Amino acid sequence: MGRKILVSVIGGHRCDDKTSALAGEIGEIIAQEGCVLVCGGLCGIMEAACRGAKEKMGLTVGIIPGNDKNKANPYVDVVIPSDMGYSRNTLVAGAGDIVVALPGEYGTLSEIAFSLIGKKPVYGFNTWEIPGVKNLDNTEELRKILNEHGH
Amino acid sequence: MGRKILVSVIGGHRCDDKTSALAGEIGEIIAQEGCVLVCGGLCGIMEAACRGAKEKMGLTVGIIPGNDKNKANPYVDVVIPSDMGYSRNTLVAGAGDIVVALPGEYGTLSEIAFSLIGKKPVYGFNTWEIPGVKNLDNTEELRKILNEHGH
Amino acid sequence: MGRKILVSVIGGHRCDDKTSALAGEIGEIIAQEGCVLVCGGLCGIMEAACRGAKEKMGLTVGIIPGNDKNKANPYVDVVIPSDMGYSRNTLVAGAGDIVVALPGEYGTLSEIAFSLIGKKPVYGFNTWEIPGVKNLDNTEELRKILNEHGH
Amino acid sequence: MGRKILVSVIGGHRCDDKTSALAGEIGEIIAQEGCVLVCGGLCGIMEAACRGAKEKMGLTVGIIPGNDKNKANPYVDVVIPSDMGYSRNTLVAGAGDIVVALPGEYGTLSEIAFSLIGKKPVYGFNTWEIPGVKNLDNTEELRKILNEHGH
Repeated sequence: MGRKILVSVIGGHRCDDKTSALAGEIGEIIAQEGCVLVCGGLCGIMEAACRGAKEKMGLTVGIIPGNDKNKANPYVDVVIPSDMGYSRNTLVAGAGDIVVALPGEYGTLSEIAFSLIGKKPVYGFNTWEIPGVKNLDNTEELRKILNEHGH
Repeated sequence: MGRKILVSVIGGHRCDDKTSALAGEIGEIIAQEGCVLVCGGLCGIMEAACRGAKEKMGLTVGIIPGNDKNKANPYVDVVIPSDMGYSRNTLVAGAGDIVVALPGEYGTLSEIAFSLIGKKPVYGFNTWEIPGVKNLDNTEELRKILNEHGH
Repeated sequence: MGRKILVSVIGGHRCDDKTSALAGEIGEIIAQEGCVLVCGGLCGIMEAACRGAKEKMGLTVGIIPGNDKNKANPYVDVVIPSDMGYSRNTLVAGAGDIVVALPGEYGTLSEIAFSLIGKKPVYGFNTWEIPGVKNLDNTEELRKILNEHGH
Repeated sequence: MGRKILVSVIGGHRCDDKTSALAGEIGEIIAQEGCVLVCGGLCGIMEAACRGAKEKMGLTVGIIPGNDKNKANPYVDVVIPSDMGYSRNTLVAGAGDIVVALPGEYGTLSEIAFSLIGKKPVYGFNTWEIPGVKNLDNTEELRKILNEHGH
């Protein structure tokens, strides 16, 4: 397949239906634009995004906190068990060439911080208001951005 | 000496004179209250705080990003070289029973996030405005807090 | 593609021609048996194995020590930059459902140790003599083993 | 106190009485020679060594796998909770200026490997037979070595 653009999707392990639908749509776009989806591999936004990517035949990577691969959501193709707890957030942020941030709690904040430390482009949807995060209004803007990078 | 309360001081590796003086005062208080100072071990706020603690005969621990102990500032007693780059921020946050946050950039933000993930009390002086950080107006407030915990 | 069996290939970043050929053959087998190849992403045995896997249209993941994806060998599809130095060896070992150990130095030894800590099956080709490593005489034995697990 | 020499003591979390006594003696020597004892912070050899060091008024640092400081043995002064599982072995090895290896299982092997990767002097007592480990016959040899480095 050749070197791929990795897009990290970060956000809470709990989310409402609307955010879940948004995450799914983002996962679909990542797959359609030929990128690999990376996430923390668990439930909530991570699972919704992976499911979206798989519906469009994308590749999904989940870097999970523990060491039991069965804890990953069923839509993760490649499970990397870090056994590093929340410190794995640094790996999720570090893996992405592009980072998409959705609503989340302090874990998401830590991933935003690590993405910005790494000078990565971070695109936000209703997430933490941190200088350096570029807020997007709709997923079509994200599609355009990935379309420029992904091929 | 017996199990000690650890206080993590987080903040930028560059700082102005006023912030440096504040960090030094905080280091002094940590030592005077019988706590161990933990930090990222480098320059700026980290060095100023360590110097303050050493002036009051405190113990200082520096968890540095690389693997060369000589990169630690000269006021660190116990150098832990993580060789984990910025991911060592998770260790600095994790080590503290109490976290004191000063001005800093995204690295400091990541340490605040990890401290809050760990449900630690985080006291801020002119730092990132993040819900959960308790802002203090002066160092005497910090002294009182440590005095309650530190003995 | 669905959840894949991951096979971690560990070994030195320098190797002679014979070992390089062996690593390439192992990479081919991993791909042919429908598994994903995971490695440390750099040169030597890692590069030879990845090249072999790509020749058979396999998927390759490289977990590199630094944070610059360009340091990965050109046959890595998915680069995970750990920024953890040699500590990333724990991730390479942890990612594999099966570990294949080739000749290497202390880095390889650390990966064998971490694989055995994780109770993973470790198959060795002329590598460190450590109790728990099952030495294989030829690559066809490995093919049989992967064939049982990989589908 | 000024920058201290750190001595990492590695070995199993279970040990027989004789090994426990040896570990205690090593801890005493580390303290008497003015060095700081670093270990994985848990039970077995780690606890015996810490207890020995505390009997001689030494300073002990424990880098534990989890995030609950209460899991550290009672003879650890400074607890660093890594939340990194067995990967914290890389930190224990990395912290030592000198490493003393006692009997242990794969965890100990991983710490020996990481110590040797870091080109640290590793002194062994009935531990893994790995080239690069210098076996010592008695603790007085260790005292001499620390005496040269520790002051």
